[in-house]
Amino acid sequence: MFGENAKSVSESDVVFSSRIRLARNFKNYPFPFRMNEKQCREVIEKVKDTVFSTSYAAADSFRFYDISSMDPIERQAMVEKHLISPDLAAMQTLSGVIISKDENISIMINEEDHLRIQCLYRGMQLDRAWENCKRIDSMLEEKIDFAYDNSFGYLTCCPTNVGTGMRASVMLHLPALVMTGYIKGILDACSKLNVAVRGIYGEKSDASGNMFQISNQVTLGLTEEEIISSITNISSQIIQQERTLRSELYRQNSYRFEDRVFRSYGLISNARILSSEEAMKLLSDVRLGVDMGIIKDVDIDTLDEIMDITQPANLQKITGKALSAGERDIKRAEIIRDRLRHRPNT
Amino acid sequence: MFGENAKSVSESDVVFSSRIRLARNFKNYPFPFRMNEKQCREVIEKVKDTVFSTSYAAADSFRFYDISSMDPIERQAMVEKHLISPDLAAMQTLSGVIISKDENISIMINEEDHLRIQCLYRGMQLDRAWENCKRIDSMLEEKIDFAYDNSFGYLTCCPTNVGTGMRASVMLHLPALVMTGYIKGILDACSKLNVAVRGIYGEKSDASGNMFQISNQVTLGLTEEEIISSITNISSQIIQQERTLRSELYRQNSYRFEDRVFRSYGLISNARILSSEEAMKLLSDVRLGVDMGIIKDVDIDTLDEIMDITQPANLQKITGKALSAGERDIKRAEIIRDRLRHRPNT
Repeated sequence: MFGENAKSVSESDVVFSSRIRLARNFKNYPFPFRMNEKQCREVIEKVKDTVFSTSYAAADSFRFYDISSMDPIERQAMVEKHLISPDLAAMQTLSGVIISKDENISIMINEEDHLRIQCLYRGMQLDRAWENCKRIDSMLEEKIDFAYDNSFGYLTCCPTNVGTGMRASVMLHLPALVMTGYIKGILDACSKLNVAVRGIYGEKSDASGNMFQISNQVTLGLTEEEIISSITNISSQIIQQERTLRSELYRQNSYRFEDRVFRSYGLISNARILSSEEAMKLLSDVRLGVDMGIIKDVDIDTLDEIMDITQPANLQKITGKALSAGERDIKRAEIIRDRLRHRPNT
Repeated sequence: MFGENAKSVSESDVVFSSRIRLARNFKNYPFPFRMNEKQCREVIEKVKDTVFSTSYAAADSFRFYDISSMDPIERQAMVEKHLISPDLAAMQTLSGVIISKDENISIMINEEDHLRIQCLYRGMQLDRAWENCKRIDSMLEEKIDFAYDNSFGYLTCCPTNVGTGMRASVMLHLPALVMTGYIKGILDACSKLNVAVRGIYGEKSDASGNMFQISNQVTLGLTEEEIISSITNISSQIIQQERTLRSELYRQNSYRFEDRVFRSYGLISNARILSSEEAMKLLSDVRLGVDMGIIKDVDIDTLDEIMDITQPANLQKITGKALSAGERDIKRAEIIRDRLRHRPNT
């Protein structure tokens, strides 16, 4: 999923990924839901022309995908890899996405807004994501007139995005907070701080695999840097609490802790039938074990790959054919075993 | 536990072990519960003299253990290995046991009866057990006057043993009958046929690890050969039903079947805390997987060894010290992992 090694990235024991996305709209076009086909096509072409003619997109570092002509499994596979939003995948009108080769940058066209610029990195790298978003934004702004109001800022289809048009988010792995039940307090505090908490697969998903996405709810009246700083600060506190609880749980009963992570490892590396839900749950324990140095000989990159594989559409994409839910559970277990094989138990 | 390889023994996919025991009493002594210390000692000495002076017990093939002077863990370890009965281990009066080096033969002294001669073999070997019991019985009878009545046969402390004084039993591993619930019908049928069904650890134990001991309830009015033949016939039918159900379950959903046995394998080879009850349950699944050729690279002899180890007293004997229940669960998991290590998952 990511173009870099997990261990080289800061806070990667708790922070799975960092993401910035900017909402932008063309000045002289209605919002996507009111555009006709001709206008949709013009917007797509204008964005493509801009991206592929700049030196930024030198050589073959970007690629365009016509969402409208992709089959549902292909679209869903992109959603599962966080390259596009569920909304874009569900679009009935002409839409597309431009994705960088390393899959860190994606520019969605004709989603809720004309443009959704997204930069996604492993670990805690909001600043890097913001730097790259800014660069893409400037590049586009050179050729495109964005809808901008001097007092409101960037105008967007949904009023909640007006202003900076920015959403900064971090995906946190919080198994210890969940185990102890302290997660409830965190969620309450977040809602009071205008911070949104979601599951790993977007707005309506639950916290599968103990993954929680923390993001800003307010985009107006704050600078981009203030938003990033606020999410960074809140994340830091949550990260610290998660780490403290992990150590404390381990200190209190190391055998029970090890028992839990190794049982999950034993199950995920031996099961013949695995639902996506169970795989995510087991992966969370194994990831915790690896992050705490309890499980050796399994690397985080393998776990990230397995997390992609466990999702239904990516599984079918790898297999090369549509599978029923029952067939997927068998195939999922088979591929996971294959990825984990030849790794001795410690 | 056994002096021979599992695979060389007939019906070992279902039959764990075969056992014959004979109850015998001295003619000129009261039953053990009425003897004084002097009489107890005389009986023990007489048996020892007889066994260790005959050519049958040539060289060092037998060894005497003074139960009265053994510590409780040592006694219990012998019970867990089926070398002595729970009753003998609990004796307050002078008692002992003579055990063959291969642990197939044991002669308990001053249990409920003066003598309990037991021969225990892996797999379906009632005939062999009976041959050896007869030989020991004859050897003892050369020097000892047994309490015998021409119309009743051998006299015993409890009237249920009068007659042949024989109990013939087989220990059956019946996971498929349990999974399907058909075991209930088997148990009902057995009780109608005067066949007793017990768990693996004797009269009051439940069917831990899906192990069921089938034995005759009647010792009077039948010859020894008739008793053996009856237990053999009933066992054969149960074995056949178990095998048919195993194949049928596997045929109906091979993935679910494999999932079950491999999950148990994954858990038992990775857990850090294992109760004896859970270990027996997991072992039953793994044994089933090995017997059906699904799990390769784990042999039945290793599983037999693990079954011994999982029992509390043997675990403490191996560890060399008394352990609390919590410590045992950790040690049990550790030793089991050790025994299974370096066996690649298939």
